[in-house]
Amino acid sequence: MNKGFFISFEGGEGSGKTSQINRLAEFLTARGYKTVSTREPGGTPEAEKIRDLLVKRDGGNWSPEAETLLLYAARSMHAKQIIRPALDEGNIVITDRFSDSTLAYQGYGHGYPLEKIKEIDNIILSGLKPNLTFLLDIDPEEGIKRSTRRLTEQTGKFERMEDRFEKLDIEFHKKLRKGFLDIAKENPERCHIIDAAQSMEQVTQSIIGIAEKHLDAQK
Amino acid sequence: MNKGFFISFEGGEGSGKTSQINRLAEFLTARGYKTVSTREPGGTPEAEKIRDLLVKRDGGNWSPEAETLLLYAARSMHAKQIIRPALDEGNIVITDRFSDSTLAYQGYGHGYPLEKIKEIDNIILSGLKPNLTFLLDIDPEEGIKRSTRRLTEQTGKFERMEDRFEKLDIEFHKKLRKGFLDIAKENPERCHIIDAAQSMEQVTQSIIGIAEKHLDAQK
Repeated sequence: MNKGFFISFEGGEGSGKTSQINRLAEFLTARGYKTVSTREPGGTPEAEKIRDLLVKRDGGNWSPEAETLLLYAARSMHAKQIIRPALDEGNIVITDRFSDSTLAYQGYGHGYPLEKIKEIDNIILSGLKPNLTFLLDIDPEEGIKRSTRRLTEQTGKFERMEDRFEKLDIEFHKKLRKGFLDIAKENPERCHIIDAAQSMEQVTQSIIGIAEKHLDAQK
Repeated sequence: MNKGFFISFEGGEGSGKTSQINRLAEFLTARGYKTVSTREPGGTPEAEKIRDLLVKRDGGNWSPEAETLLLYAARSMHAKQIIRPALDEGNIVITDRFSDSTLAYQGYGHGYPLEKIKEIDNIILSGLKPNLTFLLDIDPEEGIKRSTRRLTEQTGKFERMEDRFEKLDIEFHKKLRKGFLDIAKENPERCHIIDAAQSMEQVTQSIIGIAEKHLDAQK
């Protein structure tokens, strides 16, 4: 494979993206593929600064439009400095979130016009899209329960997570889920909806099966 | 006047924008106009955060594209929260820099395509443009000399300014000046080129004369 392969993972809180990305990367590495795992917003020092602004809510209440622009500032650098060079070297790039997340969160979730997001995407990314997207779909109540439990266990930072979900309530997460499902339906070649309520092992097997099929088709 | 009037000041380093904005605002207030003075990037707490990222170069080396998006994130909030409401209330809004600065710095100066900046401007501002723009034009060598002298006198922070101009060398400032002059020539109704090498008093008199003419025409 000499032109790289670009995989994104999308989904709401508690859908288990991070664990599944690690498992897929391990599997692909064992199969002899070179893989690069990255995440959004982030991936470069500059983009991590933007992550701070948005995730930690450092610096005020950004409008959905301003959030979209900040995310694309981060994505622009992420694409240019990390994703495109890694693809050019023939790697499999696996990213935790990409453009679909902006459509889902700022568009479907916060009501910023989808058309504007698509126009900005087009100006900034000039057509860069994942070859394959896994949408880890989970009922928002269950996802939030999992996400809060997991973070409490791992970091003891229960308050921060609580705080985060106070701001983004359950209705928001329902809109988000609908958004992701709509996006997946509009892009059936690229997007695969995975039922993330299954066991981790089942989810991993589904993902690996689909990834292998796509990668074999590239050969 | 019931729909407000929007004035921007543009120009390179040391062109004296801040002093002239203060003088114009004082004059207009004395004439009974309600004025709101603001600046870019900034004007809202969120936008000031972006100013920190860009002006203090906090967080790395942003690409011209990412800078453009950060500036429009700030501008989006500035327009929505400060400029449009103030205009709707019938104020004269005077801003230290607006969209022309992005065209000049990121476009002409750093080579980001002008067309892309104009597309982003259109998506974000939906046609919001100053009614009147003063371009304070000065030879870059003279401007930088003035700017460094002024800041040293006022704050003693000579090193920071030196550092700033080391990064943006004289060739950059020449491209910037050409950019501003091109923009002014393309928008002769809106833009007035003021020779900022004149005495402060002469510059103020030119600005006041032009502003009065435009405001009288609005009545």
